[in-house]
Amino acid sequence: MDSLYSVIPAGGSGTRLWPLSRAGYPKFLHALTGPARSMLQATVERLAPLSPAERIFVVTGAAHAVAVARQLPNVPEENLLIEPSPRDSCAAIGLAAALIARRDPDAIMGSFAADHLVRAPQAFQRAIEAAMVGARRGLLMTVGITPTHPETGYGYLQCGEPADGVVRVTEFKEKPSADVAAEYLRSGRYLWNASMFVWQVRVFLGELARQQPELYGGLMTIADAWDRDERETVLNEVWPTLPRISVDHGVMEGAAASGLVATVPGDFGWTDLGDFDTLGQVLAEEEFGGPDEAGNVVVAPDPEAVALIDTSGSVVVASAGRLVATVGLRDVIVVDTGDALLVCHRKQAQDVKAVVDELKRRGAEHLL
Amino acid sequence: MDSLYSVIPAGGSGTRLWPLSRAGYPKFLHALTGPARSMLQATVERLAPLSPAERIFVVTGAAHAVAVARQLPNVPEENLLIEPSPRDSCAAIGLAAALIARRDPDAIMGSFAADHLVRAPQAFQRAIEAAMVGARRGLLMTVGITPTHPETGYGYLQCGEPADGVVRVTEFKEKPSADVAAEYLRSGRYLWNASMFVWQVRVFLGELARQQPELYGGLMTIADAWDRDERETVLNEVWPTLPRISVDHGVMEGAAASGLVATVPGDFGWTDLGDFDTLGQVLAEEEFGGPDEAGNVVVAPDPEAVALIDTSGSVVVASAGRLVATVGLRDVIVVDTGDALLVCHRKQAQDVKAVVDELKRRGAEHLL
Repeated sequence: MDSLYSVIPAGGSGTRLWPLSRAGYPKFLHALTGPARSMLQATVERLAPLSPAERIFVVTGAAHAVAVARQLPNVPEENLLIEPSPRDSCAAIGLAAALIARRDPDAIMGSFAADHLVRAPQAFQRAIEAAMVGARRGLLMTVGITPTHPETGYGYLQCGEPADGVVRVTEFKEKPSADVAAEYLRSGRYLWNASMFVWQVRVFLGELARQQPELYGGLMTIADAWDRDERETVLNEVWPTLPRISVDHGVMEGAAASGLVATVPGDFGWTDLGDFDTLGQVLAEEEFGGPDEAGNVVVAPDPEAVALIDTSGSVVVASAGRLVATVGLRDVIVVDTGDALLVCHRKQAQDVKAVVDELKRRGAEHLL
Repeated sequence: MDSLYSVIPAGGSGTRLWPLSRAGYPKFLHALTGPARSMLQATVERLAPLSPAERIFVVTGAAHAVAVARQLPNVPEENLLIEPSPRDSCAAIGLAAALIARRDPDAIMGSFAADHLVRAPQAFQRAIEAAMVGARRGLLMTVGITPTHPETGYGYLQCGEPADGVVRVTEFKEKPSADVAAEYLRSGRYLWNASMFVWQVRVFLGELARQQPELYGGLMTIADAWDRDERETVLNEVWPTLPRISVDHGVMEGAAASGLVATVPGDFGWTDLGDFDTLGQVLAEEEFGGPDEAGNVVVAPDPEAVALIDTSGSVVVASAGRLVATVGLRDVIVVDTGDALLVCHRKQAQDVKAVVDELKRRGAEHLL
């Protein structure tokens, strides 16, 4: 059985994790759950049994090329695909698919977010192998996570009845309101969309051509020039004209409507570490260090860098080397970095995005 | 009518205002209520109509001599009295009294805290003039502030019935518990002790000799040597042997028991800016800038240095030049300085002292 080509779109700046995650040094480059490996390095490591390094592709922006190259020394240079500008996930994943198809037209390819947490890598590998079986049958496979709570920060997959040994995805749903999320949970018909896909490149590119002919045409032009001297010229000319659309909207929704999308369960301890409240919950697990006796989690290179007085249920990230002292706090997030400080109630961890929006409005690019 | 000699003991590090106030740069050197003048400068300025610069004395530690000298360029060098080490207020005020008595045995002298806020300086001047009348009659005069709430952060003066046109102080009370403070307020017999005293140096030194003969003797030895070459030798030899006691305990309580202490009302908008909750209340007054529309007060050299999202009733001091962003906070204090950050609930503003105690325990002297 042939090994998998794995594509990791490493874009997005993780605005809800500002000021830790920045446009210039985003979430996937950070070691959020421990000092050993960044989220990106952990992603590549868990894919290793499925994809040898020469079958790992990372699509990232020019601003992160150096950091990605240094974090992943074993991934061949030609597999690090540098976008001239962000054109959303359909262009990023499509470019990788087009280049993989030229190398191996029969390839099976997966796409995996660069910044998700997986607690059980072996279960992850079994799930992806199950998805590869569906992919060989011509399906565009997704991984669905059984919801444990009415999360409003994730997208959802609406599922049909199992048939032919697979569960079809009938619709892709955007991040829901709290009421809708509760209804999804009650119905038992919805899974969290973990943004993981497995397919034959041939099938994916066929759907891309059918649903997004302009995007497909542009990507083919770029792929034709890739191994020639014209690569840079063509890339810089064509890339900025590509439609900006996510792979969910651009391909998966239409494919689902055509009955081409199915899902495998992803019971491998998945979490999208999208905000500081979630990060705090994860770090409170024993595996990731656990809480102190008052239920706080602290991320600090030096334990003497924090002094928590009568403080509970809080998340303190002291990454600036300064002392962080708290008194009388309950369920508060404090994130201290060299040039910016965030203090936020845990219940409003999603609203950190509003700070980033405000800074954009002010033109404070250096803080983004 | 002769002008007043004013003594300003400028010691104490203002631990409840940490990390703004530090042992090395304490509260009185800071401009807490506006950029124009430090608390010390404001104190000297409001005394100017009563005491010309050559009758202003500041008693401070060697660590603050340079800053005090630069903040008060008009106060003569010989009036800046530098303590070799802190020996509490009785030694500090006693030294100034002894030196003033040598210059002018009939002097009337006042002692005024270096770091209190007075909103109505003319009313202050009238109150001190009234106290000088009592002092001429041989009384040790205090200034009593009519309490507006059961404050636990101040000491109290227990008052007798008015007689002979003055109100005698029958007892000095330490900072009370909340219950006791409420009882004081109900009784109507207690005033806040504003740590302001006016007396004839002769009378004060007489009480010092009677109640604290050892301290008095040491101070006389130092004063005898003051204008001779031996000043430094004698000061460094005798000063460290002086009893550590406050002027309240050392002289005023005993004098009150002898019927020698009286008080004048201090209706001049007095506040001891002892903690960040109080500072926030003061800065919320229109005179000091007022709150924003959500009831927050912000101290920041640059208004672009803060971004407050869904935050109310909070106090944000952004003095490190970094961006301070808050989300979803109610009644929280955030104080950002170059090497230390404090986040504290306003209700626990008094407990900031616990952080300083913890840092002392850790031996983190550089943060104190």
